[in-house]
Amino acid sequence: MVQGLVMNKGFSEAERKAVYRAIRERRDVRRGFLPDPLPDDLLQRLLACAHQAPSVGLMQPWRFIVVRDRQIHRSVHEIFREANAEAVGDFDDARQALYTGLKLEGLLEAPQHICVVCDENARQGHGLGRKTMPETALYSAVCAIQNLWLAARAEGVGVGWVSILHPEKLRAALNIPSGFVTVAYLCIGYVNDFLPSPELENAGWETRTPLAELVSFDRFDDRWRTRSKA
Amino acid sequence: MVQGLVMNKGFSEAERKAVYRAIRERRDVRRGFLPDPLPDDLLQRLLACAHQAPSVGLMQPWRFIVVRDRQIHRSVHEIFREANAEAVGDFDDARQALYTGLKLEGLLEAPQHICVVCDENARQGHGLGRKTMPETALYSAVCAIQNLWLAARAEGVGVGWVSILHPEKLRAALNIPSGFVTVAYLCIGYVNDFLPSPELENAGWETRTPLAELVSFDRFDDRWRTRSKA
Repeated sequence: MVQGLVMNKGFSEAERKAVYRAIRERRDVRRGFLPDPLPDDLLQRLLACAHQAPSVGLMQPWRFIVVRDRQIHRSVHEIFREANAEAVGDFDDARQALYTGLKLEGLLEAPQHICVVCDENARQGHGLGRKTMPETALYSAVCAIQNLWLAARAEGVGVGWVSILHPEKLRAALNIPSGFVTVAYLCIGYVNDFLPSPELENAGWETRTPLAELVSFDRFDDRWRTRSKA
Repeated sequence: MVQGLVMNKGFSEAERKAVYRAIRERRDVRRGFLPDPLPDDLLQRLLACAHQAPSVGLMQPWRFIVVRDRQIHRSVHEIFREANAEAVGDFDDARQALYTGLKLEGLLEAPQHICVVCDENARQGHGLGRKTMPETALYSAVCAIQNLWLAARAEGVGVGWVSILHPEKLRAALNIPSGFVTVAYLCIGYVNDFLPSPELENAGWETRTPLAELVSFDRFDDRWRTRSKA
């Protein structure tokens, strides 16, 4: 049933380190985008990485809308502003002050955006793997995003995921019909620098959890309940 | 508001190539797992990569259950067998024959599994970024999986995502309480070889779509409707 030559050659130590470096130094970028648009060949290379992601049943449900139209950038920024104004009220006074000082998107600075859309009803894949866990179509699209994000880091390209948006308004701005899910809206562009740690950590919004607290063996760790509001 | 030194050093050509290689040569592995368990330091290194993923509001909602107990491996395999038997009936005759010839999991061969659980109600992150798109908590956990998957490839470690499982039965097998989402169940272990192309492609289950058909500019591409059952 399985054909094809196998690839026996392992990664060198230098190659392994490069992969770890991309993972460690990837950042959610909200500032510092340079105005130069990404060259087409680079953009295609990054999208090709996204397209090499795993997908349930080889469904490949991801669709990429590259947004270069400045008028749409402004429309999406307006959608962000509305959603962000609504979000502020959810925090107590001290955290409101912290929140309003955060820069949470680079929609007007980034020379291009990418909206990642998932077709949950795509014929491809023939439903394999989705009978009991249909959400894996959406998860496949997220794997594609993470591939693109890491390749972008290696290319000196910043990516920022903006989730403070009303999906229905985003749908209207980009003519996305019902039946297709707006998984992510990304700002993307060259940057000079990447911060050594996440902006939300630097700003005192949240701290990083020690890994040991997030790993258990063989069964659910009941300590995890204490981290949860549920 | 933002502190910290910036990292100006770009990736070398060799480093970039290594990142592209990991993305290109990553496979969903269902066979060929070697019986040797992963050394603890390697397992921790891979989990640390998962933990370096982006998360909405720095929420870090991922929880990792490393399953080494062979009895649980057998229980999960039984859960797979039930779900898989139910899935077969969804296909027409020709595709049923193809489907039953596929090897879709390596649950009994892989010396360890990882169940990735998401706490959608985690206090961390304080809800930032989740008011309009709460699903980003789940998506953060998927980004963690893709980080781990790529690092594993660089280490010669195969990962296979098994979605043909009833989530409620998996929950029972691992004592996962309600309020926590079973995002993924992964088989993981050393392999000698990685196939040059996806097993489902080699087996004739599905073909890969040309990238150009999945990219549009500025607005949704109405040709995408023709790929959809919706």
